[in-house]
Amino acid sequence: MNTDYDVIVVGAGHAGVEAALASARLGMKTALFTIFIDNIAMMSCNPSIGGPGKSHLVSELGMLGGEMARHIDSYNLQLKNLNHTKGLAARITRAQADKYWYRIKMREIIEKQENLEVVQGIVSDLILDGKKVTGVKDQVGIEYGAKAVILCTGTFLKGRFIIGDVKYEAGRQGEQSSEELSDRLREYGFEVDRYQTATPPRIDKRTINFSEIEELKGEENPRYFSYYTLKEENSVMPTWLTYTTPETIRVASELLKYSPIVTGIVSSKGPRHCPSLDRKVLRFPEKTDHQIFLEQESTESNEIYINGFTTAMPPFAQDAMLKTIKGLENAKIMRYGYAVEYDYIPANQLKLTLETKVLENLYTAGTINGTSGYEEAAVQGFMASVNAVRKIKGQSPVIIDRSEGYTGVLIDDIINKDTPEPYRVLPSRAEYRLTLRQDNVFLRLLDKAREIGILDKEKLEELENAKKEIEKELERLRNITVYPTKENNEILISLGHDTMNNPVSAFEFLARKEMTYDGLARFIETEKLSKIVKEQVEINSKYKIFIDREKNQIEKFKKLEEMIIPKDTDYEKIKGISNIAISGLVYSQPETIGQASRISGITHNDMTLLIAFIKEKNK
Amino acid sequence: MNTDYDVIVVGAGHAGVEAALASARLGMKTALFTIFIDNIAMMSCNPSIGGPGKSHLVSELGMLGGEMARHIDSYNLQLKNLNHTKGLAARITRAQADKYWYRIKMREIIEKQENLEVVQGIVSDLILDGKKVTGVKDQVGIEYGAKAVILCTGTFLKGRFIIGDVKYEAGRQGEQSSEELSDRLREYGFEVDRYQTATPPRIDKRTINFSEIEELKGEENPRYFSYYTLKEENSVMPTWLTYTTPETIRVASELLKYSPIVTGIVSSKGPRHCPSLDRKVLRFPEKTDHQIFLEQESTESNEIYINGFTTAMPPFAQDAMLKTIKGLENAKIMRYGYAVEYDYIPANQLKLTLETKVLENLYTAGTINGTSGYEEAAVQGFMASVNAVRKIKGQSPVIIDRSEGYTGVLIDDIINKDTPEPYRVLPSRAEYRLTLRQDNVFLRLLDKAREIGILDKEKLEELENAKKEIEKELERLRNITVYPTKENNEILISLGHDTMNNPVSAFEFLARKEMTYDGLARFIETEKLSKIVKEQVEINSKYKIFIDREKNQIEKFKKLEEMIIPKDTDYEKIKGISNIAISGLVYSQPETIGQASRISGITHNDMTLLIAFIKEKNK
Repeated sequence: MNTDYDVIVVGAGHAGVEAALASARLGMKTALFTIFIDNIAMMSCNPSIGGPGKSHLVSELGMLGGEMARHIDSYNLQLKNLNHTKGLAARITRAQADKYWYRIKMREIIEKQENLEVVQGIVSDLILDGKKVTGVKDQVGIEYGAKAVILCTGTFLKGRFIIGDVKYEAGRQGEQSSEELSDRLREYGFEVDRYQTATPPRIDKRTINFSEIEELKGEENPRYFSYYTLKEENSVMPTWLTYTTPETIRVASELLKYSPIVTGIVSSKGPRHCPSLDRKVLRFPEKTDHQIFLEQESTESNEIYINGFTTAMPPFAQDAMLKTIKGLENAKIMRYGYAVEYDYIPANQLKLTLETKVLENLYTAGTINGTSGYEEAAVQGFMASVNAVRKIKGQSPVIIDRSEGYTGVLIDDIINKDTPEPYRVLPSRAEYRLTLRQDNVFLRLLDKAREIGILDKEKLEELENAKKEIEKELERLRNITVYPTKENNEILISLGHDTMNNPVSAFEFLARKEMTYDGLARFIETEKLSKIVKEQVEINSKYKIFIDREKNQIEKFKKLEEMIIPKDTDYEKIKGISNIAISGLVYSQPETIGQASRISGITHNDMTLLIAFIKEKNK
Repeated sequence: MNTDYDVIVVGAGHAGVEAALASARLGMKTALFTIFIDNIAMMSCNPSIGGPGKSHLVSELGMLGGEMARHIDSYNLQLKNLNHTKGLAARITRAQADKYWYRIKMREIIEKQENLEVVQGIVSDLILDGKKVTGVKDQVGIEYGAKAVILCTGTFLKGRFIIGDVKYEAGRQGEQSSEELSDRLREYGFEVDRYQTATPPRIDKRTINFSEIEELKGEENPRYFSYYTLKEENSVMPTWLTYTTPETIRVASELLKYSPIVTGIVSSKGPRHCPSLDRKVLRFPEKTDHQIFLEQESTESNEIYINGFTTAMPPFAQDAMLKTIKGLENAKIMRYGYAVEYDYIPANQLKLTLETKVLENLYTAGTINGTSGYEEAAVQGFMASVNAVRKIKGQSPVIIDRSEGYTGVLIDDIINKDTPEPYRVLPSRAEYRLTLRQDNVFLRLLDKAREIGILDKEKLEELENAKKEIEKELERLRNITVYPTKENNEILISLGHDTMNNPVSAFEFLARKEMTYDGLARFIETEKLSKIVKEQVEINSKYKIFIDREKNQIEKFKKLEEMIIPKDTDYEKIKGISNIAISGLVYSQPETIGQASRISGITHNDMTLLIAFIKEKNK
């Protein structure tokens, strides 16, 4: 045995990086294995972090003690506040990352982390003691001991690069794949399956005609992902928005015969939520104006990522299609889009701690679990590591419940739901959507963060105090009455608000649409509160009724768990139900409402419509 | 044909980067092909640039219009002035590079260069029209047209990673090799051979015990490589010096049986001038205190390069040997040392322009030509590109003569001398060692730089003016007489110098050992000259006699070209001759002095000794 570690992490992508840092920060002697040190924390695909559902994961991860939140706050080209018009509670953040800086600086953090060692090599086997994992063996034959092993292998297990009709071994284009480990896993009793994913071409910024396309700047004062981020302002480098044209669709349709998903060279399942252009054209041939976002990859680079143009068509076809997009008539491709097929371990073989049921002390996290996305990977890497460490230390596991965070939704989903495609978190997957907001992460996860013990005491105390202040202020507002005095109504009129007729508590008064906490000062005495406290007080007041309704509905669903779905139900007839829900229901043929609710991609809204439809039918 | 370029450069290491930039800067539409964009300009082995011979190459390259000189001046951790005690004319610079910044910023320069496009892909074939190259074909089958193709493939042609008894396909550890192109080259009539090279392990800085080892800081005011560099001060980050111990040699000897060069897994020839530890132990078993320099790879990284500890022994052996080195008792390896075997094209198949004799419009540069070293590669890439462009434009080639620069020595050597091992430039390979100094690069190459036309006019004019000033001042000093007056001798005594007895020209007076140009002001009227002009005036004065002697000797050698070497000459009996010379002479069995002088590794000094020995013998 070369060295004995507490924890060995295999793979240094976004899952591996979080796993390694968490373990080391919890005092474990940790080794992080990577095939190529220089590519630690590389963003293999899009240059963005956050967005619907994902922003929640990142903020939760930050609150629990992960690195991604703080890191993307530091190394981005722009941050956008999304859903601004949908009301306070829906607001989320999306970062356009600086790919180069993100990885370079993450490598620096990794290398400087106490208790953490980086080892370059390809892990080819596990060392077993019966059904317990006791270490790993690398391609060269060296053995490394460990009390726990966390596999975060991304797309590298038997990775196959695919473009047009060309297919060869590679974990990413240009990088070696890991050819042996997944065979060993199969021998040890794991079910191993194959997924694929794809990435769009990258073009040279200098060859874009910017005069025809829309520029989208970032926020100067965005909502950051991490409570540690104290920036005065943020970079606002633009991205650009353009569209496909009817000509794009015509050219693409003509060339579709060369698509590897049409020829069958790619046979494994890819992510439906992030469809390639080929698939878009196959499925919605009538739609011609698909959005195309042009995103620069780094301040250090001219490479532009063509978000919305994922394809593994042969290069000549990519060139031909690209030229039909507004502003890209003369665009020059630097890297062609391609697909990669890889082995993954269906996650129903996992416990909620992300330890495998097949082998003890073995954990898997990220793409190997059949998920897609940097954020999904990072959260799993972190949680697997926390629980691996807790097991080593003899502590009880930390499990985030579905009602506590998207982290819980994600992990519960991949283990307990069918995932017929690479899994991506979506707001629609969360039942407690109004409770699980990006803004209240610190309220939801403060106790878990304390239990995990990575966040420093000062930060925990600061957030704890904010929490107390919020509760205190909400209590105070509930006990103050605002009366419909002439004076108050005059102020309301002067502000252009509706007048009031009945006395209400200040808490209810704040729920009025245009009212803000600062605005309350004209009517009652207010406190000097921090921004974060004020925001929670406002949201609590304004959304109480909706949050309560959500909770009731969830209770109702739970009661309907056993409700039978008639065999002859024609899902296509349910008005308003999503296409994903229809295909999921048709594919799975659930017998009960409970089973239907656990199908991946079926939303709360879909369930409401389904239940109403069946009730109507049963009448 | 996908696109038509003027020049296609294959490979984006140090040769490829210079080739691509030069071509684009000369107005050619240029494409730079790389297997992995993120690894452009990566330093695969040591983190240093410069040193004996190499510093000359870099400075020459900078003067001609290459990028490396300016770039390493910017992105280094320290610069050292070497040979400081050997006198003005011997001084050279050695940089410890910041590997990370070097490559990141070089990528940025590449991407922003007008006329230059980067394409990610593996070139697998050439497109031919008879014996003329008209383009390349990539692994995916796309064809790209070009008027000239420059191959800078480094160690990637059928690259094989080797460590212990493990051997697999890789251009560098973790990266895909290029498997097809060299087969095609062989089919097209090239002789293809195999070399190997190796790299030492990298360790984690935090595991070094610094208390026992010597710290070596950089110069605050070093000599820079480029005339463009105008820095106030330079980073002085330390490197460290330690030594192998008798225990290292004992352990290494015991484990030598596992060395791939002993087991025969590596059979190709490696660089003698940069021997692995295995070879050092094999050849000099009695020497126990080999110098080991510990060099940090970047400000962004904890990785320490163990200069002097190159080995591809199996990892357990590397661990065991490492622990015997002072200060490294607990050192932790992050990347194990390994060897890489690769195809190269013996350079006797080239013209002096670096165009191949076999196929027209095809050029090769760098490691593919059987050389080793970043600097050697960069210079070839640049010169190949300049000449490719000049051919396209119908201009006469630019050839640097052996008497004009190390660039000329290098290119002439690899084409016209046997190179039984990867070729490295060495001062001993240059006949005109006293003329070819790092300090006078601008004087030697100003005309060539002007002919090439990449350097901007202002810089050329500035250097031209300096050149004129030097000539003018030398002329002036030759015409001033310094007399042995009482007053002058009193000053000399007060300075602690020897007194003078005869009148001499100021030029001769300046040649006195301790005299400086500024010191002259006590004796004659001096001019207000720039530092660079002053230095050349001093060196010209002080070294005139040696430079003249060198020229005479070279003339003498030329006359001895046809002198016969007796068949029974026992080279081992020549006192003072180098081991490299003996093995070269024994291997090549030259018939004449001329032939002997063209054997790679035979120095001027060796030749002097050989000629004296034969003359003595002939008596």
